[in-house]
Amino acid sequence: MSLVAPAPAEGHVLDLFLKPRHVAIVGLSRSAIGGPVSVLTTLQDFGYAGRVSVINPSMADQPGVRAYPSLDDLPEPADLAIVSVARDLVLDVLRDCVRNRIAAALVITQGFADADETGRRLQEEMVALARETGLRILGPNTIGVANARDRFTSSFIELERDETPIGQIAQSGLFMMGHHIINNEPAGFSVAIDLGNACDVDLVDALEYLEQDDGIRVIQCHLEGITDGRGFLEAAGRITREKPVVALKAGRSRGGEKAVASHTGAAAGESAVYRAAFRKAGVLEAESAEELRLLSKALVTYRPPRGRRVAVMTFSGGGAILSIDAIEGAGLTLATLSEETRAALRGFFPDWLEIDNPVDIWIPVSRDLDGSYPKILELLLRDSSVDAVICIYCSYRLPKYEAFDCSGHIRALAASYPEKPILGWSYGLDISGFTQSVEADGNAMVFPSLDAAAKTLDKLAQAGGRRTEAPHVTVPRFEVETSVASKALAGARDAGRSALFVEGLEILSAYGLPVADWAFARSEEEAVFAAERMRGPFCLKVVADALSHKSDSGGIKLGLKGEAELRAAYAALCDDVRRYSAEAEIAGVLVQEMAPKGHEVMIGAKRDPVFGPCIVAGAGGIHTEYLDDFAFRIAPLSEAEARDMLAELRIARILAGVRGEAPCDLDSIVDCLLRLSQLVSTHEEIAEIDVNPLIVNAAGAIAVDARIMLTAGGEV
Amino acid sequence: MSLVAPAPAEGHVLDLFLKPRHVAIVGLSRSAIGGPVSVLTTLQDFGYAGRVSVINPSMADQPGVRAYPSLDDLPEPADLAIVSVARDLVLDVLRDCVRNRIAAALVITQGFADADETGRRLQEEMVALARETGLRILGPNTIGVANARDRFTSSFIELERDETPIGQIAQSGLFMMGHHIINNEPAGFSVAIDLGNACDVDLVDALEYLEQDDGIRVIQCHLEGITDGRGFLEAAGRITREKPVVALKAGRSRGGEKAVASHTGAAAGESAVYRAAFRKAGVLEAESAEELRLLSKALVTYRPPRGRRVAVMTFSGGGAILSIDAIEGAGLTLATLSEETRAALRGFFPDWLEIDNPVDIWIPVSRDLDGSYPKILELLLRDSSVDAVICIYCSYRLPKYEAFDCSGHIRALAASYPEKPILGWSYGLDISGFTQSVEADGNAMVFPSLDAAAKTLDKLAQAGGRRTEAPHVTVPRFEVETSVASKALAGARDAGRSALFVEGLEILSAYGLPVADWAFARSEEEAVFAAERMRGPFCLKVVADALSHKSDSGGIKLGLKGEAELRAAYAALCDDVRRYSAEAEIAGVLVQEMAPKGHEVMIGAKRDPVFGPCIVAGAGGIHTEYLDDFAFRIAPLSEAEARDMLAELRIARILAGVRGEAPCDLDSIVDCLLRLSQLVSTHEEIAEIDVNPLIVNAAGAIAVDARIMLTAGGEV
Repeated sequence: MSLVAPAPAEGHVLDLFLKPRHVAIVGLSRSAIGGPVSVLTTLQDFGYAGRVSVINPSMADQPGVRAYPSLDDLPEPADLAIVSVARDLVLDVLRDCVRNRIAAALVITQGFADADETGRRLQEEMVALARETGLRILGPNTIGVANARDRFTSSFIELERDETPIGQIAQSGLFMMGHHIINNEPAGFSVAIDLGNACDVDLVDALEYLEQDDGIRVIQCHLEGITDGRGFLEAAGRITREKPVVALKAGRSRGGEKAVASHTGAAAGESAVYRAAFRKAGVLEAESAEELRLLSKALVTYRPPRGRRVAVMTFSGGGAILSIDAIEGAGLTLATLSEETRAALRGFFPDWLEIDNPVDIWIPVSRDLDGSYPKILELLLRDSSVDAVICIYCSYRLPKYEAFDCSGHIRALAASYPEKPILGWSYGLDISGFTQSVEADGNAMVFPSLDAAAKTLDKLAQAGGRRTEAPHVTVPRFEVETSVASKALAGARDAGRSALFVEGLEILSAYGLPVADWAFARSEEEAVFAAERMRGPFCLKVVADALSHKSDSGGIKLGLKGEAELRAAYAALCDDVRRYSAEAEIAGVLVQEMAPKGHEVMIGAKRDPVFGPCIVAGAGGIHTEYLDDFAFRIAPLSEAEARDMLAELRIARILAGVRGEAPCDLDSIVDCLLRLSQLVSTHEEIAEIDVNPLIVNAAGAIAVDARIMLTAGGEV
Repeated sequence: MSLVAPAPAEGHVLDLFLKPRHVAIVGLSRSAIGGPVSVLTTLQDFGYAGRVSVINPSMADQPGVRAYPSLDDLPEPADLAIVSVARDLVLDVLRDCVRNRIAAALVITQGFADADETGRRLQEEMVALARETGLRILGPNTIGVANARDRFTSSFIELERDETPIGQIAQSGLFMMGHHIINNEPAGFSVAIDLGNACDVDLVDALEYLEQDDGIRVIQCHLEGITDGRGFLEAAGRITREKPVVALKAGRSRGGEKAVASHTGAAAGESAVYRAAFRKAGVLEAESAEELRLLSKALVTYRPPRGRRVAVMTFSGGGAILSIDAIEGAGLTLATLSEETRAALRGFFPDWLEIDNPVDIWIPVSRDLDGSYPKILELLLRDSSVDAVICIYCSYRLPKYEAFDCSGHIRALAASYPEKPILGWSYGLDISGFTQSVEADGNAMVFPSLDAAAKTLDKLAQAGGRRTEAPHVTVPRFEVETSVASKALAGARDAGRSALFVEGLEILSAYGLPVADWAFARSEEEAVFAAERMRGPFCLKVVADALSHKSDSGGIKLGLKGEAELRAAYAALCDDVRRYSAEAEIAGVLVQEMAPKGHEVMIGAKRDPVFGPCIVAGAGGIHTEYLDDFAFRIAPLSEAEARDMLAELRIARILAGVRGEAPCDLDSIVDCLLRLSQLVSTHEEIAEIDVNPLIVNAAGAIAVDARIMLTAGGEV
């Protein structure tokens, strides 16, 4: 059985879901006719002009709607079937679709991978059917789509006919039904897609659909888990250079991750990895549902500012101080007004008042608002040392306070200076009235808090940065001994080992990472012989697969000088280890030159199940596990990314040289990170690499200890 | 000249400002009569029933208001004068008040310590007048007061007649005029006091006034800077055991601190010190204007929960995951429902749906909301493993969606289970309508975000903890050699030194802090003699006032064994130091036993200009300055506070013992902190103490290096 009806000759396959000319609703109960929670009712209220067929064996025709006993009875194929039958009937309906040349099915029914084992199995059958026949499936466990421009929706609950040029992709119907979530303000989206369990149509399909839609200027995503991480990085990384993408990752906490798994059946990755992925793809991360909505609206309202220097114009000195807290908290800077601006402002104020940013305008506006407000605001907007203005004003509702209404001035000047965002924060008894007035032309916004205004400005600046970023980030390619590494990895796998210590050092060396001189010795004599070639002092480390933390087991001896110390240490080492664990099978010892003095850094790599190879840098030694001082990036790394990682660490301040110490050679760490990136990107059998510590000083970096973990049996 | 009219025989002096029977408005211009920005207009609109006299030499009587040329012409003294004349006339008016036996003056005029040098001088004169005559002054630079219960206000801009039992103390009029700041919701305060520059009536006066007012259940503070830190700690620490105090500290950032100084003329302290002060006094800290208002309202609405275990009941699975993020982000825990509750819930759901918290109720409520919602919510409220419930619901405005309106059920159950807060978060098109319904009886609230709901719950739990806390925290008192310390401090001061190294060790020893054995030597011979008494190995440290960071100057030699090494090191040390700084005057060397191996901790004390002695603990050694791993508390410390400090540090995880290492002896650090607290509390001439490092291991703690800084010439 295979689908005969193809996707529409022109346009994206998702047009079938968002712009169907004929839709069949399968599973509409009699009670849903005219009922509040009914796809049919919502569709009619939304103003859908296409053809609707209801499939129900026991229903007669309804006004404007034809009813048929089954899909087989349709005189011609529908573009889309909306399916909300019980979960054990869904597969039959999907087969009916295929038989009747219906190319797209939107499955509202829940109880699949979001539920139990039976549900997971049913979903697998659904996927198999899609792959086999070419039927495209959205869902299951979805509220479906809404397309306000074409008046089409599959939502069973009331929607607004909003045509804001925002496209929404969500993994929950909440974001489609609750787009007025903040302050009861009207704003939303023109197109929305709830991916549900995303068994077939997935995030990348939806992103690419909104990418090619010229009516969409901002893409808003609610994500619980991504499955095709590399596809996401590629698509989002491309799209964000043209239109901003904002994303809220739900399930950030550990408990949340557990719930994600049970809600959509998708495995959620770690927060740090998602954050790194968003950064790599230029996606702006929202911290909450409120920020997702606010930031999307801001990206539609404003052009990105050219810089991060903010002027504040405020009715209240108390507000001035709060705004400084917000501006500095968001990593923006308070603009230093030009001498020219200060001189021009002088005339509005009594002599005793110091002119500074924030500009406290109560005195001039209480005397003559219309004569001062627009002039002062324009002076700030014209100042080339100002990139954006935050306006703090009071909003009173009695007609006698009309003399204090500055909303019209803000609206007018926002239109005249579109390259400099004006952000409002209002206190008083008529915030909503003033907000409507400020926002009427769509060039300025009023924010629910000063913190929200400042954070939004920070992200607008980030969005601007993404657009002007060089489109191709160079990933260096080193000449390395790939085959040495491949052989070592294959050897370890053949020997059934999954944690590599000695081979780890060998592999790092093959990739040009500096490793403290070492040799593997199977006996005391071999150890003495190996040490003779080195400069010393040495250390001895026991090699046994069962011991992952050598210092717990006493399996390490440091600072050995000369043969006698070496021999004594060898014997003591073997004793210690046996005392610690009778079963530990000692393969031998590693004889290694002691590293020079320096700071301990940790670098590593991890193959994330969603996004693939990631690179980590952090504080090393015991600090790694206890100080949480890490930076993550998705491989492959560019040099700029590697430098950014180091700058992000708290230990960066120590590496820069403390108390007169020479700064550490950061270039050498960057080189190590880039080589590590190439290593993990090249060899898919590597699950994880820990280089800890990497000893760093002014002369360079040198790896002392490393561990490479292999993926389980060929699995990536 | 002194004031004859006393404060009212009964009641607090602030009653003069908040409940005057007769008020004189001085400085009301003719144009302000009936104008929007006019104290007189606002007062009349607010419904004030007392007597109003207007003082203006060129004004005739107005309807309901008598006008007089000057205060001298009043037939009998007013209780309060509201002064808004130009700044250079204010002092004359205040003298008129005293002459006419007016006991209280509220000065609206700005341009004093908030402005320039002239303003500061004028304010000083005002303070002198108050001290000399007994006149009480509120302001200057204030919008004054509002008392909705008695319908009195000095605000010149519209206010609401709100009687919520919240008392507000602010340093900006914004908080009085903008109490509808969030979501345009009606909520606010019944009494508000804007302290302005607080030249006379201050924060402590206002706190104590609201303390004794039984109509006030929650005190809300906006603070820019505190001057009487100890007075605040005492008053707030007492009040918070009876009624909650919430505070927003504005001017948190460095830039903000600068603006604080220029705005109110009060010096703002550091954020960490304020945070420590709030914690000590049991004051709940708000992070923003929005949180201040929301938290105040929550404290009026809810009783504190008994614990931190939260159940979630949600219309949307997507909302469930967001709620987990919010709950865990706020440090709360997701309740584990009892078996009994799970069994009772089972009947509402299809078999394939796993019953878990969050409870996703879409299936039962879409079938029969009234038959399921209240029953499920009550099951959660009855569960003894649940302390609070977050309800996520959709709010639609069309009449046909009435079947989904759960607001009445929430309202009813909130009244029945007052000990278990129910917090709402709503998405949809009629948030405000549903919010009104949920909040109508004042037993439940709807929050602008899930994060706000969870954070509020965390702080409600904190407020509950404060009430049940043991009222008298025991501060230990050690037997120490106070006179040894006093003598050393006096000696150093007499010698003109402000940085004490050798005496620092002596003083610490006198207070029973363990110090690595040491001796001060003025010559090589003295050093050798001193070392003979010690066990060794030793270190030598140069003692010279100009060298604060010894390791920068080469002024330290470590790990010396035996006389020869000691002599060589002594000579080398002297050479090194002279090479580093020709001027450094070497007083001698410190011979000290090397400390045992251990982790480096830093402990210290600082005399804060606002709050007095504070205690610090943190990561030691180079980490102190670069990892920002600190805990602050206000002295005197209790043992519980000292333990809390250590638990708060990131290095706590290292001190607890890593990789099989024995845990450090935390008791010994606690003992050091408590002794340090006694030391800095006893000797006012100490400005700062740094003990860094304090070496800590399983056997105890030992101070290796210390520095005590003295206050400048007797100043505290």
